[in-house]
Amino acid sequence: MSEAKRVVIVGVGLIGGSVGLALKQQGWEVVGVDVDAERLKRALELNAIDSVATIDQAGPCQLAVVATPVDHVVGTVERLLAAGAEVVTDVGSVKGPVASAIDDHRFVAGHPMAGSEQDGIDGATPLLFSGATWVLCPTAKTDDDAFVTVRDVVVGFGANPIAMEPDRHDQLVAVVSHVPHLTAATLMGLADGRAVEHRALLRLAAGGFRDMTRIAAGHPAIWPDICVQNADAIVDVLDQLIAELSDVRTVVAGRDRQGLLQRLETARSARRNLPTTAPSTDAMSEMRVPIQDRRGELATLVALAAELDVNIYDLEIAHSTEGPRGVAVLIIETAVADRLLTGLIDRGYRPSLRAIDS
Amino acid sequence: MSEAKRVVIVGVGLIGGSVGLALKQQGWEVVGVDVDAERLKRALELNAIDSVATIDQAGPCQLAVVATPVDHVVGTVERLLAAGAEVVTDVGSVKGPVASAIDDHRFVAGHPMAGSEQDGIDGATPLLFSGATWVLCPTAKTDDDAFVTVRDVVVGFGANPIAMEPDRHDQLVAVVSHVPHLTAATLMGLADGRAVEHRALLRLAAGGFRDMTRIAAGHPAIWPDICVQNADAIVDVLDQLIAELSDVRTVVAGRDRQGLLQRLETARSARRNLPTTAPSTDAMSEMRVPIQDRRGELATLVALAAELDVNIYDLEIAHSTEGPRGVAVLIIETAVADRLLTGLIDRGYRPSLRAIDS
Repeated sequence: MSEAKRVVIVGVGLIGGSVGLALKQQGWEVVGVDVDAERLKRALELNAIDSVATIDQAGPCQLAVVATPVDHVVGTVERLLAAGAEVVTDVGSVKGPVASAIDDHRFVAGHPMAGSEQDGIDGATPLLFSGATWVLCPTAKTDDDAFVTVRDVVVGFGANPIAMEPDRHDQLVAVVSHVPHLTAATLMGLADGRAVEHRALLRLAAGGFRDMTRIAAGHPAIWPDICVQNADAIVDVLDQLIAELSDVRTVVAGRDRQGLLQRLETARSARRNLPTTAPSTDAMSEMRVPIQDRRGELATLVALAAELDVNIYDLEIAHSTEGPRGVAVLIIETAVADRLLTGLIDRGYRPSLRAIDS
Repeated sequence: MSEAKRVVIVGVGLIGGSVGLALKQQGWEVVGVDVDAERLKRALELNAIDSVATIDQAGPCQLAVVATPVDHVVGTVERLLAAGAEVVTDVGSVKGPVASAIDDHRFVAGHPMAGSEQDGIDGATPLLFSGATWVLCPTAKTDDDAFVTVRDVVVGFGANPIAMEPDRHDQLVAVVSHVPHLTAATLMGLADGRAVEHRALLRLAAGGFRDMTRIAAGHPAIWPDICVQNADAIVDVLDQLIAELSDVRTVVAGRDRQGLLQRLETARSARRNLPTTAPSTDAMSEMRVPIQDRRGELATLVALAAELDVNIYDLEIAHSTEGPRGVAVLIIETAVADRLLTGLIDRGYRPSLRAIDS
């Protein structure tokens, strides 16, 4: 039997602890690192980690996962790389600053779109990522092998990897996560302010309000760092939201039933079309792209797909047994496959395409 | 055996159908009225109603419940009163315009704070109101007996009645229902607009975004009327929300971690303190107020409690066997009971107070 692979997880909260539990199910030996001794003790009790160490004492590892607050990610990744980790990934909510700060072929920036109402290690579960989207952001430096290692782990968790440029990720999470969180907190604060005046108010709050403000119940400590790191994108989306709400105000003040109905119809239709976390039911195709087996090839493919607005739902690398060549295998929606095919051919690639039976 | 009491329900959608199912469990004979023959047929199939009629043909009834869209409530209530209904209530989301338009002692305005993701009669269930808050708005004209009839029905549904002035209700639901709904639709619209540009966006939408925008999936047809009827209160709250979001923008743009943390801490604390729909765990007291058994006495009590910011969690009337006197029995929080006691004594009432063992 081969020896178990070792992973070092830095930060054993909800995400780090869940990664530990899920990796142990895959047979990894899990070393936990944390600034909080109590949290490490609890992680040991919950079997989320096998042992405790510091980064410098952790020894050789095939993988290191950084699950610290976002402000500590860059420094922690650098220390792990200096300590000799073979592959390093992180799970932070903002990707641009990290991806541009780390200049190492062993690093793959990542972000699982998963969370839980239960904060901290006690909410950890190996099922946290099942069906969740997991963003991976290979950079121009990222090594194919490092990408494949992280991608395989993520797929093993039952997550759906999606490859994306870091800045694009940050713009999108501002829309679907950061600004909604700030808005939920603002609505809750507004209701609370009024409640001082009207004690009855919060008793009138039915399911819709509870749903809308649920995320405001989460632990706020992680948010200031996230908001500061992604401030530009968040401010941009807040400006749009404020402008849209001002339009809504005009429509309501003008008793414009038709304008209201139109806005609500559009929103309803969009909400009903919100993809579930289950894999897409759209027809999918597999595109095979022969590539030079060198750093940066993956990032080039991801950037081109982004430019052409084609999502990469999965990305594998098949290495050639002879010489420095390989094949990147991309899973994309059939509807947009031709666009990527043409784009790749224009840039000198020789891709092939086939539909996947669902 | 006494003959079954008859209720006429106008509008047999989600709420009207659920009222029908719940009243049938209480032994009422339920007559359904609706402009949509298909909906009536479905209500019959689901046993939400016993028979179908028009308002004019419905015959005598002890109770009529108006569950039409809000723009039709006033006209429908007037027709039911003209047809001889003994007591009429409605379930509309805006109460001020209805309460001021109907000048009849048999009318009690009401609003159950309950809904379902499933629109229409097919979502109807007798359990819809279990544990829900049900606002009742007696006016200066409302007869005690009419109030008691509606209150008893509501309590029989497992709902928690709360008596409140109509305009106050409208201000509060603007905060906890109408503006949150418009905000959810706006966030969804914003994400959808960006999704045209970034196809990946909606796949990044995790649980928090789904929770926040869920209410935007509801049928929009009822909302234009609600927004128009409650436009002033909604515009007022939208102005506050826009101002607060502008402050948040300033805090984010200024990278003000402390300011962000403070806002999020406040919201978290408020969200965690959001009362559940279960009855309050606060210490409660029962206040007995001898009243003249005449119209308007209830409304006077409700108005005084509102002025003193005391919630009335339940309100019963015990009639005297001799003469036109009675006793109003109010359930209120012990913490604020003295305030109401003093206020009532100042106005010439002779209330008594006792704590309730929980």
